[in-house]
Amino acid sequence: MSRKYVYAFGGGKADGTAEMRNLLGGKGANIAEMSNLGIPVPAGFTITTEMCTVYSKLNRQYPPELDIQIREAMADVEKIMGARFGDQENPLLVSVRSGARVSMPGMMDTVLNIGLNEQTVKGLIANSGNERFCWDSYRRFVQMYGDVVLGLKPESKEEEAPFEVALTEKKKARGVELDSDLTADDLKELVDEFKALIRQGKGVEFPEDPWKQLWGSIEAVFGSWNGARAIKYRQLNRIPDDWGTAVNVQAMVYGNMGEGSGTGVAFTRDPATGQKIFYGEYLLNAQGEDVVSGIRTPQPVNKDTQSSPDQETLEEKMPEAYKILEDIYLKLESHYREMQDIEFTIQQGKLWMLQTRLGKRTAAAAVKIAVDMVNEGLIDKKTAVSRVEPAQLDQLLHPTFDPKAEKTVIAKGLPASPGAASGRVVFHSDDAEEWAAKGEKIILVRIETSPEDIGGMNEAQGILTAFGGMTSHAAVVARGMGKCCIAGCGALEINYKDKLFKVNNLTVKEGDWVSLDGSAGELMLGQVPTVVPDLSGDFTQIMEWADEIRKIGVRTNADTPHDSQVAVNFGAEGIGLTRTEHMFFEGDRIKAMREMILADDIEGRKRALTKLLPYQRDDFYGIFKVMDGRPVTIRLLDPPLHEFLPHEEKNQAEMAREMGVSVEKIKAKVGSLHELNPMLGHRGCRLGTTYPEISEMQARAIFEAACELKKKENIESHPEVMVPLVGTVGEFTDQKAVIDKAAEAVFSEYGFKIDYMVGTMIEIPRACIVADKIAETAEFFSFGTNDLTQMGFGYSRDDAGKFLHEYVVKGILPEDPFHVLDQEGIGELVQMGIQRGRSTRADLKVGICGEHGGEPQSVEFCHRVGMNYVSCSPYRVPVARLAAAHAVIKEQGKAELKDV
Amino acid sequence: MSRKYVYAFGGGKADGTAEMRNLLGGKGANIAEMSNLGIPVPAGFTITTEMCTVYSKLNRQYPPELDIQIREAMADVEKIMGARFGDQENPLLVSVRSGARVSMPGMMDTVLNIGLNEQTVKGLIANSGNERFCWDSYRRFVQMYGDVVLGLKPESKEEEAPFEVALTEKKKARGVELDSDLTADDLKELVDEFKALIRQGKGVEFPEDPWKQLWGSIEAVFGSWNGARAIKYRQLNRIPDDWGTAVNVQAMVYGNMGEGSGTGVAFTRDPATGQKIFYGEYLLNAQGEDVVSGIRTPQPVNKDTQSSPDQETLEEKMPEAYKILEDIYLKLESHYREMQDIEFTIQQGKLWMLQTRLGKRTAAAAVKIAVDMVNEGLIDKKTAVSRVEPAQLDQLLHPTFDPKAEKTVIAKGLPASPGAASGRVVFHSDDAEEWAAKGEKIILVRIETSPEDIGGMNEAQGILTAFGGMTSHAAVVARGMGKCCIAGCGALEINYKDKLFKVNNLTVKEGDWVSLDGSAGELMLGQVPTVVPDLSGDFTQIMEWADEIRKIGVRTNADTPHDSQVAVNFGAEGIGLTRTEHMFFEGDRIKAMREMILADDIEGRKRALTKLLPYQRDDFYGIFKVMDGRPVTIRLLDPPLHEFLPHEEKNQAEMAREMGVSVEKIKAKVGSLHELNPMLGHRGCRLGTTYPEISEMQARAIFEAACELKKKENIESHPEVMVPLVGTVGEFTDQKAVIDKAAEAVFSEYGFKIDYMVGTMIEIPRACIVADKIAETAEFFSFGTNDLTQMGFGYSRDDAGKFLHEYVVKGILPEDPFHVLDQEGIGELVQMGIQRGRSTRADLKVGICGEHGGEPQSVEFCHRVGMNYVSCSPYRVPVARLAAAHAVIKEQGKAELKDV
Repeated sequence: MSRKYVYAFGGGKADGTAEMRNLLGGKGANIAEMSNLGIPVPAGFTITTEMCTVYSKLNRQYPPELDIQIREAMADVEKIMGARFGDQENPLLVSVRSGARVSMPGMMDTVLNIGLNEQTVKGLIANSGNERFCWDSYRRFVQMYGDVVLGLKPESKEEEAPFEVALTEKKKARGVELDSDLTADDLKELVDEFKALIRQGKGVEFPEDPWKQLWGSIEAVFGSWNGARAIKYRQLNRIPDDWGTAVNVQAMVYGNMGEGSGTGVAFTRDPATGQKIFYGEYLLNAQGEDVVSGIRTPQPVNKDTQSSPDQETLEEKMPEAYKILEDIYLKLESHYREMQDIEFTIQQGKLWMLQTRLGKRTAAAAVKIAVDMVNEGLIDKKTAVSRVEPAQLDQLLHPTFDPKAEKTVIAKGLPASPGAASGRVVFHSDDAEEWAAKGEKIILVRIETSPEDIGGMNEAQGILTAFGGMTSHAAVVARGMGKCCIAGCGALEINYKDKLFKVNNLTVKEGDWVSLDGSAGELMLGQVPTVVPDLSGDFTQIMEWADEIRKIGVRTNADTPHDSQVAVNFGAEGIGLTRTEHMFFEGDRIKAMREMILADDIEGRKRALTKLLPYQRDDFYGIFKVMDGRPVTIRLLDPPLHEFLPHEEKNQAEMAREMGVSVEKIKAKVGSLHELNPMLGHRGCRLGTTYPEISEMQARAIFEAACELKKKENIESHPEVMVPLVGTVGEFTDQKAVIDKAAEAVFSEYGFKIDYMVGTMIEIPRACIVADKIAETAEFFSFGTNDLTQMGFGYSRDDAGKFLHEYVVKGILPEDPFHVLDQEGIGELVQMGIQRGRSTRADLKVGICGEHGGEPQSVEFCHRVGMNYVSCSPYRVPVARLAAAHAVIKEQGKAELKDV
Repeated sequence: MSRKYVYAFGGGKADGTAEMRNLLGGKGANIAEMSNLGIPVPAGFTITTEMCTVYSKLNRQYPPELDIQIREAMADVEKIMGARFGDQENPLLVSVRSGARVSMPGMMDTVLNIGLNEQTVKGLIANSGNERFCWDSYRRFVQMYGDVVLGLKPESKEEEAPFEVALTEKKKARGVELDSDLTADDLKELVDEFKALIRQGKGVEFPEDPWKQLWGSIEAVFGSWNGARAIKYRQLNRIPDDWGTAVNVQAMVYGNMGEGSGTGVAFTRDPATGQKIFYGEYLLNAQGEDVVSGIRTPQPVNKDTQSSPDQETLEEKMPEAYKILEDIYLKLESHYREMQDIEFTIQQGKLWMLQTRLGKRTAAAAVKIAVDMVNEGLIDKKTAVSRVEPAQLDQLLHPTFDPKAEKTVIAKGLPASPGAASGRVVFHSDDAEEWAAKGEKIILVRIETSPEDIGGMNEAQGILTAFGGMTSHAAVVARGMGKCCIAGCGALEINYKDKLFKVNNLTVKEGDWVSLDGSAGELMLGQVPTVVPDLSGDFTQIMEWADEIRKIGVRTNADTPHDSQVAVNFGAEGIGLTRTEHMFFEGDRIKAMREMILADDIEGRKRALTKLLPYQRDDFYGIFKVMDGRPVTIRLLDPPLHEFLPHEEKNQAEMAREMGVSVEKIKAKVGSLHELNPMLGHRGCRLGTTYPEISEMQARAIFEAACELKKKENIESHPEVMVPLVGTVGEFTDQKAVIDKAAEAVFSEYGFKIDYMVGTMIEIPRACIVADKIAETAEFFSFGTNDLTQMGFGYSRDDAGKFLHEYVVKGILPEDPFHVLDQEGIGELVQMGIQRGRSTRADLKVGICGEHGGEPQSVEFCHRVGMNYVSCSPYRVPVARLAAAHAVIKEQGKAELKDV
């Protein structure tokens, strides 16, 4: 028996099923499934995706059996539809559509109305009694065939398509405006003119033979799989070339055969809210494309979807067809146990189903539908969890702009931290604080931010920067604060002096209102109204189920008691990263910090550090209290010291006055601390190694806070002291000795001990290589994948924006590696670090505290490589919890596949 | 039989030999060897290094057999020396000295004159007839024993040692100045006073029992192996703790027993020149330490070493002893087949040999001795090659200061590029060029250098910078130019405005003379005279032998025909790195370069690039011509574009005038190109990927030059086009396509082809991880270990100076990883890159072009991991050739050890 390349469907049965998506494509498999379910679909057949590959391999030739199988299948279609392909009296018309495993919208070709020619059009007219409709169908077919199959396209982008030109001229000659105003005769003339255009442009005759038309169309669809557009799309979406596309040949049905005909699209539940209503729109006497094109306003299918009572529903207009449609949607949903997006056409009163597929939905709808379906007994909890996309959750956790509001988008930047914010523009952190104190809502606009801007960022509704990427200072801090941020908005020309920015020809001044959409990266003029999300019980339910499934822990990155509380509310099981540097910017602290930096000797530094100690102790006390016994990882001071000194002349003078030293001294210090590449400079444990007194003070503050909390409120703490930027084992042991000594001293002062660990951040490539040695003394590793990505790739996150975007567009990188962890390169370093570390210390606790800890693909990676936990900003904690559950489900799915 | 811990020597025989260095230590093994050779050595015995370890393991206890073995050995010594240990009439005195496998000068303890007490001193007086000498010996012994064995030391660093205080007081009381002015009675009093000090300070009696004295001394020496000083020294020199030290107990002989006695040190050849003369110094009536302390001026042993005819030689003074000494030195040298450094003592006319060991020598001497000894048939070529230290060669290749000249060192910096240079201080590159044009010798002094300074650096005799490390821009460029450079001279406060620098309290102005010792990192005032080295035939000979042995190729890093010629003269077999960016700074080129950078679109850039093409082509033509068929690796443009724009206001204005654009435009461009971490920014292939037209122009220039050279002069070229900073396979394939396309175009224009390769620099950590993928299309890898070290460690080479020095001092890093390749971390990345690369492409050509390519330890590493070649600056080519030969010899040595 020869190989089966053609799968028929129609008449209540089909060769294929929904499971055969890989062979039949998504569309073909679902039509087959519908047919099997007894749902009326126009009969037809699917040529398999396998043929697409064979066709390429045979150098665009077909194996001889294909022709035989197609002819057989066509005979079946003719029987079911009661018409014959090419018959002059009762012609069968067919469509040819692509259909790959996954949807590639608009990437491949379609040809409709195949089978029309000078003879068959007459038969069609006789049968339909609608001459204009028939000539219009013929006209459309010649145009589509000429364009798609014969390739008669405009010569350059500037030119209009030749068929469109002829159409426009015809309307002009007839003195009409709309296509629909052309008469049957006009259209008939156009058919001839179109054929002449093909003859002139391509030197070939339009084929009158329906079989030639069919083969040409099939070839065009298979060919379009290897078209430039489709190849590019596959590259970007990482779809393998050898998947191929199927070709669906299907009898035509028409929703535009008069008022007894119509067409529509519908969802089996409300895709915006998830409510269990049949939600859809339709148009009478129209084709499918009319519903989506927006030329005519579609009408609701039923009362449930009516937005005003004067709208005419399908239910009222065609109650019988609607009843059938209702039965079908219920059957489809309960069959697929999933919300469906369906397309239907009613031809002269008879309902035909054209497509059913997974319905896209908002995050809120996804959550509600998943929970409802469990309650309805349609799906189990695991399936419910797997149906909510972690990345989508962001939508739920931040306020969003009212979708009905009018927006004037003036620029786009990177969607650095999701949310929606409106406020008045200010350019300096000081101004931000001042305005905010007066009750103003403000948006802080900076070329880039630095730790000096923390105060202003904290007061701002949102942050907008001209430079910097997804992990720039502004982005990281904003996400940590759960605050909306657009970074790297390159179109902005910011002028601090005149307190304004220009974008294109527009000038925005201090005090002007702007709105930021941090999820879309859109900067808008004026004050766009927002809606605050309400996290329903369904959300909590899904998260609980996710927690039952996931195996990897989820912690948070939080620097304050407030952030810690937010994260705990979102389900954080501990803190994976407390950055201590942010603690040095408020009020008097910065003075003491600067005093330490300016000190000429260790005694001077120690004096200043003594002033900082109580502040730090209080900070940790507050955090430990909120975390109530959960583990808290605290990173010792990380940034280079120059970040704590003012760089602007004015501020230097002010500092000099405040501290009673000369401006020259401050300038000299700033100068001596200047670094060409601060990212690779004197920071992290390098500071702790050269100034052990800093680490000593921080360690003491941690242990004093823990002891004090236990003594006063009998609350336990589990501090995990983390040494940053370790690249050699010597750095770690040096710092560990300082920390252990401080612990010993504090414990003996209090007379009791606190359970603590000392570990290190793994963020230097070399640390991954020598992880076995580091793990000899380090009790935990936390992968700092931000810096590891920076150093592993050699990309400064502050500067890489210039080329990273282009790299992604060109396909050199699949994603921005600061956003999605680069598993191929950086991920392998991480794996190496874990393996080597655990080769020395089998129970080494391993986590991640880079921004990737809240990114779903990266969470899956962390689960796979055996980390103990991920840590992310508070607002991403639910995302990470869900992603962690997905990782388990995916793994189980793979394991089941292996078992088969 | 119990284990042998004690090895006796003396009387023309010995238990040990020179081969037993690991067991007996260097000193013990060589004394044993001398004794076996019949050379007169004071008899004694060596307690093995093994005992040192046993002693530690037994918690500072000895196994019982040790005592028995020592008593047996002591009995032999007594027999040979004709005196008895502790005997009141004819006492034998002994010394106890440490002696590890490798010399650890000054790190461990020594005790002399053991065996003296109130009784034996009388016997010694009776025998020697020299009362004062005997009491002095006794006094010295009590002092040394009190200090070393009993630990009576000053309480703080500021205090003087108690014995010294007593000695000084005694001299004051006697009204004399020198120790030698004290009488026997004075010294006798001092013995009592010293003993009282011990009693007071340590609460113990000075032991009168000679055996107690001996055991105490042995214990002190073994104990000193685990002293803080010795442990630190071992850490720094990576000497394993379990090597242990041996203890040498040896009969005392005295060179200070009157005018018939003396002592001296000598070399079997001239250690400065290598000349075959017996070279040494002696003092009559003196102890060994007197010869080296410089209190008395030693005299030459013979006419050959006389510097003025009035010096009294040993040959004249003691002809008989000299004759014996001459026989011995000849015997020793021909026995060891190596130049020896010997110590001897003549006690009352009788010559005793105390030590023989490898003689240290200058590079010139090392070369001459090695070649001479081959010619004398003493050693083979391989041994000769192994006897010249590659690192020493630098001395030979650069001019050095006249060692006799007077020097005023005013500051020290990093010895960034060896050599000696004097010149007048200038602070700006322009000034340097101007002054040089007037024939002035100048030293360019900068806070740090940038590519803008190339012109001035080229004209300078030497370069001095206040910032930057061993691989800073200044250092790298200077080494490339073979020019003397001191970098990171932190004590300098440079004031560009007033054209002066301050160092401590001294001010040096523009035009003042200074001298730089690039090998020592010393900055000197004034014009110190230099001597130019003459590379003798011996040098050429050694290099030829090295070439016969080595397996790895040696190429050079050279950017100009001149540098290429220098390198070829030094033996370079090709170019491993031609940096093309330096080519864009001269004359009109920089204008065209800047025009390109300022261009707003691709057409503008292409216009400017068209102007640069002929310059580039000529550069490559010149280099290809010099290299005459040898392979030439050319790296495409690497630095960020802002390096080509002026950053100072004045220069920006000048550029604006020259180019006819507004200053604002230039400032805006400089601003938009500004990067926070330029090291990790828009550079390398990231430039080529976003501006392919730059790569295209460079590739075209390379291929046109090669074709032109073949056409005009029939000289072949083998260009290897190198894409810098590749981190993903996509970047490489993108650039390779551009290069291959340019090659095709040029070849079709010329009608013939040139053999070329396209490969990549591996300098991004991620590139090592994905090397297998990169090697699918890359034909060669060249490891850029400078950047790989920067990114692998996360150290900016321009900024790391602040902590790197401290890291090395603290032992966190064994060496500056920019100087010696970090094999543990970065080296493993390199190995991974090679293995993965060759897993895809077995014949992948692999080299190194970082600064490490000329550093001996790193060259050995490159050989070991299977690289095809190393590449280094022209002046380091001989160093690399020799180091490569050493790597083979070392490997063969290890293989032989395995075979045994």
